[in-house]
Amino acid sequence: MNQHAIQAEHPFKRSTQVQLRFNDIDALGHVNNSVYFQFFDLAKTEYFAGLEVNADINWCRPSIVIANVNCAFIEPTVFQEPVEVLTQCARLGNKSLTLLQHLVNRDTRALKATCATVMVNLDPATNQPAPLPDVWRDAIIAYEGHE
Amino acid sequence: MNQHAIQAEHPFKRSTQVQLRFNDIDALGHVNNSVYFQFFDLAKTEYFAGLEVNADINWCRPSIVIANVNCAFIEPTVFQEPVEVLTQCARLGNKSLTLLQHLVNRDTRALKATCATVMVNLDPATNQPAPLPDVWRDAIIAYEGHE
Amino acid sequence: MNQHAIQAEHPFKRSTQVQLRFNDIDALGHVNNSVYFQFFDLAKTEYFAGLEVNADINWCRPSIVIANVNCAFIEPTVFQEPVEVLTQCARLGNKSLTLLQHLVNRDTRALKATCATVMVNLDPATNQPAPLPDVWRDAIIAYEGHE
Amino acid sequence: MNQHAIQAEHPFKRSTQVQLRFNDIDALGHVNNSVYFQFFDLAKTEYFAGLEVNADINWCRPSIVIANVNCAFIEPTVFQEPVEVLTQCARLGNKSLTLLQHLVNRDTRALKATCATVMVNLDPATNQPAPLPDVWRDAIIAYEGHE
Repeated sequence: MNQHAIQAEHPFKRSTQVQLRFNDIDALGHVNNSVYFQFFDLAKTEYFAGLEVNADINWCRPSIVIANVNCAFIEPTVFQEPVEVLTQCARLGNKSLTLLQHLVNRDTRALKATCATVMVNLDPATNQPAPLPDVWRDAIIAYEGHE
Repeated sequence: MNQHAIQAEHPFKRSTQVQLRFNDIDALGHVNNSVYFQFFDLAKTEYFAGLEVNADINWCRPSIVIANVNCAFIEPTVFQEPVEVLTQCARLGNKSLTLLQHLVNRDTRALKATCATVMVNLDPATNQPAPLPDVWRDAIIAYEGHE
Repeated sequence: MNQHAIQAEHPFKRSTQVQLRFNDIDALGHVNNSVYFQFFDLAKTEYFAGLEVNADINWCRPSIVIANVNCAFIEPTVFQEPVEVLTQCARLGNKSLTLLQHLVNRDTRALKATCATVMVNLDPATNQPAPLPDVWRDAIIAYEGHE
Repeated sequence: MNQHAIQAEHPFKRSTQVQLRFNDIDALGHVNNSVYFQFFDLAKTEYFAGLEVNADINWCRPSIVIANVNCAFIEPTVFQEPVEVLTQCARLGNKSLTLLQHLVNRDTRALKATCATVMVNLDPATNQPAPLPDVWRDAIIAYEGHE
């Protein structure tokens, strides 16, 4: 196992199936590394949209930005391989949160990659980190089922 | 020669060198077809920016849109191949114009692809085709050196 | 209606749902033109894979190449818009065929773009155009239900 | 300053200018996060190609793979911003090495992003991590000018 892989402490409640495109595959015959982040972005959008239903929050407003990604590539993904992204909120800080995502083969459950993304809430007026609103915090805790 | 290739009636005055990226190459070992349009877009921007200098026109305003592209793929492009896009205005209509572009190897001058792009001027108020402003028309004729 | 749009003479039998990604959208707020060709490629693969089931043909072999695409952009596509690509073989020549594809909104049926793609069969030994094998021809005619 | 940014202990000796493309910009008006990794890949290729000249090593062989990337996004990159990637080998282990890369504005020197990439050498026969060949190690030390 790749020593950089990040295991999940809690079960994943959100799964996003990913549709591969022919041009996702690079000259080495695998999904190009940079494309993994397109998959993780897609699943982030769905994770937040799922919360929105319950809490009437606009997660798309640009005030929450990606500060850091840490991605471990475990195993290559090939053309027409059925894959999905599992997403959870793994840490809920004062001004930031960390999403943990696993890219897995839907059939074999083989782990392809893990990605931890630190997202920071910005005050639109000052562009400085600001506390996550309680309504966000509550929506995430309610969705994940634990603090 | 690919029978769909479009020859240029006039010499090209604008050349844009293209920097290939590793992920431009697909599983067949060639620059993916969809990526050619990224190259042509890049060169369009430079072509119009070149005009802008002389005529103080904002070519980036969304009122000029792409209505049609016709691209002939002559020969594959491989990784680290030195390529450039040649661009000219091949037709100047009342409400639309046609850009002709050739993707060529900078060293061998081998023709990789030809692309004719029809761009239409839209009236922002009605979203309907509208006459190209004279200042645009004049800038293009001055640049190309002929009508 | 965009005058470059290509209407279909026969009904489409193949539909491919497309999963949009956040980064498909460009600075103008629409799916970038170059990304449309990723969608059309995806649907080509599915069209040929559907034939393969019945005729045991390897459509992925690189001997069939894209010679020309002619794409009319009718209407922009926005983020999270539900779209699908409809695909049919619109012409079956001696050494080449033409696929016609429509990108449409799955709900409103609004036509987003039309694309005609000329694909040529190459003899792997000489790299020159060669007659389409009868087994391909038969599979396509059987699938489309007409010559 | 983003607390995830990784400072360089040694000066960067390799710089790679990056040509932005229109479709690198996403709906938020910035270079999309996933595209940063295309830039870093481009600069990795150049870094290794630069070594190759001196040491006759085939750095493109697939035996050296990316195990992990850790990228801090400091500041957005906008269209037509002049950027370059600075690359250095920041750690030379037994079976792996770490490249450190900074994306910077060529004019203002503003730091856009930092990325640490762990690359592992694989034994092609077993697909297991294997010691980096001495010729690689020597070429990197010679290039960087220190151990």
